[in-house]
Parts: sequence; C-alpha cells; structure tokens
Amino acid sequence: MLATTEIIAKKRRRQELSAGEIEAVVAGFVRGDVSEGQMGALLMAILLNGMTSQECADLTRAMLNSGERLDLSHLPGTTVDKHSTGGVGDKTTLVVAPLVAAFGVPVPKMSGRALGHTGGTIDKLEAIPNLTTALSPERFCRQVAEIGVAIAAQTAQMVPADKKIYSLRDATATVESIPLIASSIMSKKLAVGADAILLDVKVGAGAFLPEADRAEELARTMVDIGARTGHHTVALVTRMDQPLGRTVGDAVELAEAIATLQGRGPADFAELCEIIAGHMLALGGAADSPDAGRAAARQGLASGKGLPKLQELIAAQGGSPDIVNNPEALTQDTERVPVILPQAGRITAIDSRQLGLAVRDLKREAGDRSHSCGVLIHAKVGEEVAEQPAATVVVPAGTAAVAQPIIDRVRKAFRVGDSVPPKQSLLLSVVGS
Amino acid sequence: MLATTEIIAKKRRRQELSAGEIEAVVAGFVRGDVSEGQMGALLMAILLNGMTSQECADLTRAMLNSGERLDLSHLPGTTVDKHSTGGVGDKTTLVVAPLVAAFGVPVPKMSGRALGHTGGTIDKLEAIPNLTTALSPERFCRQVAEIGVAIAAQTAQMVPADKKIYSLRDATATVESIPLIASSIMSKKLAVGADAILLDVKVGAGAFLPEADRAEELARTMVDIGARTGHHTVALVTRMDQPLGRTVGDAVELAEAIATLQGRGPADFAELCEIIAGHMLALGGAADSPDAGRAAARQGLASGKGLPKLQELIAAQGGSPDIVNNPEALTQDTERVPVILPQAGRITAIDSRQLGLAVRDLKREAGDRSHSCGVLIHAKVGEEVAEQPAATVVVPAGTAAVAQPIIDRVRKAFRVGDSVPPKQSLLLSVVGS
Repeated sequence: MLATTEIIAKKRRRQELSAGEIEAVVAGFVRGDVSEGQMGALLMAILLNGMTSQECADLTRAMLNSGERLDLSHLPGTTVDKHSTGGVGDKTTLVVAPLVAAFGVPVPKMSGRALGHTGGTIDKLEAIPNLTTALSPERFCRQVAEIGVAIAAQTAQMVPADKKIYSLRDATATVESIPLIASSIMSKKLAVGADAILLDVKVGAGAFLPEADRAEELARTMVDIGARTGHHTVALVTRMDQPLGRTVGDAVELAEAIATLQGRGPADFAELCEIIAGHMLALGGAADSPDAGRAAARQGLASGKGLPKLQELIAAQGGSPDIVNNPEALTQDTERVPVILPQAGRITAIDSRQLGLAVRDLKREAGDRSHSCGVLIHAKVGEEVAEQPAATVVVPAGTAAVAQPIIDRVRKAFRVGDSVPPKQSLLLSVVGS
Repeated sequence: MLATTEIIAKKRRRQELSAGEIEAVVAGFVRGDVSEGQMGALLMAILLNGMTSQECADLTRAMLNSGERLDLSHLPGTTVDKHSTGGVGDKTTLVVAPLVAAFGVPVPKMSGRALGHTGGTIDKLEAIPNLTTALSPERFCRQVAEIGVAIAAQTAQMVPADKKIYSLRDATATVESIPLIASSIMSKKLAVGADAILLDVKVGAGAFLPEADRAEELARTMVDIGARTGHHTVALVTRMDQPLGRTVGDAVELAEAIATLQGRGPADFAELCEIIAGHMLALGGAADSPDAGRAAARQGLASGKGLPKLQELIAAQGGSPDIVNNPEALTQDTERVPVILPQAGRITAIDSRQLGLAVRDLKREAGDRSHSCGVLIHAKVGEEVAEQPAATVVVPAGTAAVAQPIIDRVRKAFRVGDSVPPKQSLLLSVVGS
C-alpha cells in the first residue's frame, strides 16, 4: 500500500487511484492518521484533476464504509429512495413519499436539514408539534415495514466521513467538485440502502449548480455510481429558476404539501411531484413506465390517495394526524406583512437565493418560533402585479418591526419589467431510466 | 480583504492573487488562523495552476516577512550570496566562499543541513572539531565585516513560514512546485539580504530536478524574484548526473575542498568552482565579466589564494585552522572497505541518488561519529576499472561488518558496460547575467 503522500501525488499526476488507496485515505482521515493538510491537498487535486467513474464509485463505497448502514433487506418489494440537491420552496418529499407509499412501494427516506439558502425536509416536518425525526435505525426500519414510509434525519453514526470531509471542503473551496458532491450524496443514499434511487438534480439561479452542463454531469456521475454499486438509479435534471410552488418556509410549505396531496397544489409544484412520483412508481414496480407512473400519480393527487399515508407517518412519528385538516394552526400566532412592489407590471424574475437567505434569516431571528416564519408568493414569474402585494411575509406575532430589514430583502427579490422570459419546461432531462 | 476560502477559490480558478491576499494567507498560516487543511488545498492549487512572476515575488516577500532579517547594509562593497539546489558531493561553498572573499568580495552565507540524498554544507563544516555554525545574527554580521566571510546555519527565527510550509509540502506531495521551490529558496536568501545572489540549479539524475526544462524554469523564476525584489541574481544550470568530484561524505568532502583550494582538486569540481566563483566575482564588482572572474578564480585556486581565508573562517568559528594542513586527521579512526565491482570495464553511470542515500544511512548508523563516514570514488563515468576498487567506503573503526548491507548498495550504484555516454559540458545555461 502506498503512503498517503504517494496517493496524493498519484492524483496530482492525474493517475487513477485504486479502491484500496481511496479506502485507506478516507478511513485514515476519519481515524486521524491522514492529516487535514493532506486531505485538503487531495480534495483540491480531485477538484482540479477530476475522478474516473470507477474512482467515484470507490470513493462512495469508502465513505459508506466509515459508518453504520441500515439493513432493509427484510422489506418486501422494491424499496425506493428519493433525493433532491436542494431548492427554494422544494417540499417535494413531503408529497411524493406518502403518495408513492400509498401505491405499495416502500419509501425509506432520510433527509437533511436546511443548508445555506435551501430549506430542509426535516425542518418542514418538524413544524408539526411533538413530531420526531430522530428515529433509531430499528424504529425507522420497523415503521417502513409497518406503514411503508418513514422520513427521518440522518444519524451521526451514518457516513461520518461525509460530515468530516464536507466541513473541510467548506473551508478549502472544494465544495464544487462533481465527484465530491456525487460521492457525498450517494454514500448517504447507500447507507440507507434502498433498492432504487430517484435523484432530482436542481439547476438554475436558485440551485446549488447554476449551469445546466454541470447539473447534467452530476446527474450522470450519480447514476453511474448507482449502477456500479448495484442500485437502479434515475436522475432528473429540473429547473429551479424561481421558488417551487408559492410558499417558502417550514409551516407554510408543509401546508402547501398537504394541499397538493389534496389535489389543490400550485401547477408547477404539482407537475414536479407527478413526474418524480411517476419515476418512483416505475422504479418500485408499481407502474410499467415513468409515463404510466406519472398518470397514476396525477390521479392519486386528484383523489387525495396519499393524504391518509401522510397522516399515518405523522402519527407513527409522534405528531397529531389531525394537523392535515387544519395546517393553518401552525401559523396561528403570527403577523402577516404584505410585500408591495414599488412599481406595477409583470414579474420578470424572483431571486430564489435571496428569498431563501431571507427566510433563513427570519428563522434565525425567530428562535424557537422559527417554523412559523415564511413567505407566501402571490405573483410568480410572468404574472402581473398592480397594487396588490406580490407576496406576504409571515413572522411570529410582535416581530414584524424587528424583521423589517429582512422583509425589505424579500421585496428586492422580486423584479418587475417588460421582458418576461419564455415559459420553459420544468424537466430538462432524464438520466439512467 | 477576502476570506481565506475565497483566496483559495481564486487560485483554484487560475486568477492572480494580490500581494495582500498572499501575505494574509502566509501570515495567517504562521499564526494558526489559516488551517493546515486550507494551506494544503492552496499548495495543491498552486502546484497545479501555477503562479505568475508577480505572485512568486509576493509569496517570497510574505515568507520573508514571517521572521527575522539580517541587516548587512553597513558592510562596504557589494555582498554576494550563493546557493545550490543540492547535489551529491557538492562541496562548492567550502571552496568558493573563502576564495571569493579573498578577492575582497564579502560573502555572507547561511546554509542548510543534509536533505534526503543530498549533503549539507553545514554538516561538512561541522566535521571540524569545536567549530560552530550556530552564529547569532550579530556575530555573523561582525565576522563578515571583519574577515569577509561567514558560513552559518539558518536560525529558527528566520523565515519560520518556510519551515512550516515545507513540512506541509512534504506531507501533501507539493514539494515539486516551481513557485513553491523558488519562493522557499529566495525568501531565505532575502532574509540574509546580500546585494547579489548566485544560484546553482542542479539538473540530472542526482539532482532534485531531473529534467532540464524544469531546472531552467526554476532558474528563471528565481532570477525574476531577485529582480522584482531589488537583488541582482544570476542562476547557473549545471549538470549533476554523477557525484561532483571524487568524495561523498562530510570529512572526505571537506578534505577535497581544501585540496581544491590548494590547486589539487578533481577536474570537474575545480571547473565548477571556477565558473561559480567567476560569476560571484563579477557580481561583487571584483571582475569585469564572469569570464574574467573565472580566469581570476582559476589563478586563485592554482596559487592557493583562498586557503588562508578558509583558515580565518575556521578560526573565527571556533575550529583549529591547522586542520587544513592535515584534514586526514578527521578520518583517522576509521576502517576503509574497498568496493570491487563484479566485472571489469568502463564505468557507464554512477547512481548519485543511491550513493547519496547510502552515505546518509552510513552516517545514521555511525551516530556521533557520522562526520567520518564517506565514499572515495576512484573511477568516475568513462574511466576504466579492472581488479582495482571502483571506490572505497570509509566507516568508523569496528563498524565495517555492520555496515556491509549499505556498502553493498554503494557497489550497486556503479554501472559497468560498453556504451559510455558522451562527455557533456558541466554548465548548461546562465540565466540573468
């Protein structure tokens, strides 16, 4: 086995690293035998010189091997996991996980918390009083076996290498490496161990990756890692130029997800849910094709088929299932500030990143009332505003004055003008189906 | 000022860093505010993406600013420093420093210790009993003022950034970056602060840089740093395909240097000393041109002009000047093992690296008698050997048996065959004259 310095030198010279070399560095870094300096140099060499498909798969496996893994092998049928690279207003999991499970396809889902300007499914679900997302591996597996779906937070015991490497990437300007992003995401998916994986790679102004070619490359890289590790993986590249749906914030997004499960969701968001659920149904064997799956999902949303499953999930995780009948209760004790734009006209753009960061900052100000903070979007791109508000900011009662500077930032996220961009299809491409 | 992560990202994107950014990172790393991980990533980005001439000069200055500097401004005339990138059998400083000083050009020289397969001037000089190379800045400057020459070890207070960065480069496979090598060498030269600098960049099988184009690039980079910091700098690129002269080891090299100062040196080594001293005399204003300087140096060696100056240096630094009359005393208590090659013929190559590493290992075995270890080379490339030994290994008395495995490695460093490579000129090129 080569010394760590020699392994770094190999990658520096653009030579392919072996599985054993990658495993040695990752395990050594977690143990502390490989220094932060060495890992920092290797991460930069990977960012600048890239990795082959085989190296990406080996890196994913090495990270996976650093921690605990779930064993879902006793579950009947084909389990299907889902992951989004993160967007503003992206509450898709809260809709598709119960909907797909209602068709008999088990969905074991571990999610993250909010990161930067993008929200986290875990935060949104925790807007429900008493609901827990801290499920032990045993409880998580039992719940999937019993009701077909669970949404839990990643535990610290799973993929500790990812946590340690991500923190170093953040400090060393190496976050934006496709092999490092792909192995980070896929190692966490493989630790859960579903049979198949549906990935939603966001692209556009409000996404982690603004460029379409980089998003396509990430999608291909992750699908390839899935194939090399025996997991049928499909990646969708979807647009995130403006916020998804008409809400941003924990409780308001949860309410919008519930409305969508009742067939009353906003068009763009409902369409994405149908596409993603359609692919998941096909992957899980409950539909003959993604298109057939999509048609079934559309019917499922219209008939409210997924709603009882969401209620089962809420009950199983300690919350009151009645919340779906009155999600407005979660934003009861709030103030609502209308956002009036300085000029009338059509909305030409909504800066998702700025909107996402504003909501993050509202939540920080609100402390333990953070779940009730959010933005309701009344006018999306292409829609007209005159005197009516373009949006409403929701903050805890008595805090509107203090939050004013952040509310001003919400207003500035809306652009009004003459040249409305042409409406584009939500789905850019499908990789791996 | 950008955050460290943003500075790393700039270099990652091949953008030029400002002097302030480079200074912030280097000073921050020495203070501990910039982490090892961040510096490791930046070093790798520098190795892979390079640095402009301006960045190299700014990096050199930032490293220089991390520690103490000498003040030689009170010395009369033009002070001339000299540096070699390191070779096997390279005892040039021990000859040219006193020789050039004997012509009235002050030579303030701080040297390093042995590194890897290459020896260090400091170790060779310390073969003389009681001689010290640990001179305080005041004593060093006073000695140069009084006798025109001093050879001392770098102090820990000078360029601490270099020590810390070099140790990280060693661990992160970033030793071989031209900007990092150049700034490391030049920051140490600038900390001494001579008016002019003569650099000997070694190239070939026994050198730090085996490829001529890389050696030329290093020479150009260092000459450029010298120009941008106001120091007239000339770099010679010279061959190091086989050991220089006919000795490798501390005491035996010191003896060979003394013989050379007496006009009895081996042809290749004497030639290099003439060339280097010639350039130093020209830089110091004691010769009209490097060629005129070389002629003067040749005469100076033939007449023994530099020997009294070496004696003055030895006396000033605590040793007995009588040693120059009997340097064999330094290897008195030794055993001599002849190295007989398995076949007769012409020497086609001598593996300097292997020979250098063997001497290093002999010294390690010998402990506090390490200065007496060495190899006397009887047959150099192109010379014939029959039954006579190709070399003699010198080890402390009573240790030949234990050292046998290392002595075998010395034998294997010699290659015998038919195709003797054509004799090539020692000097490949001159940059900056």
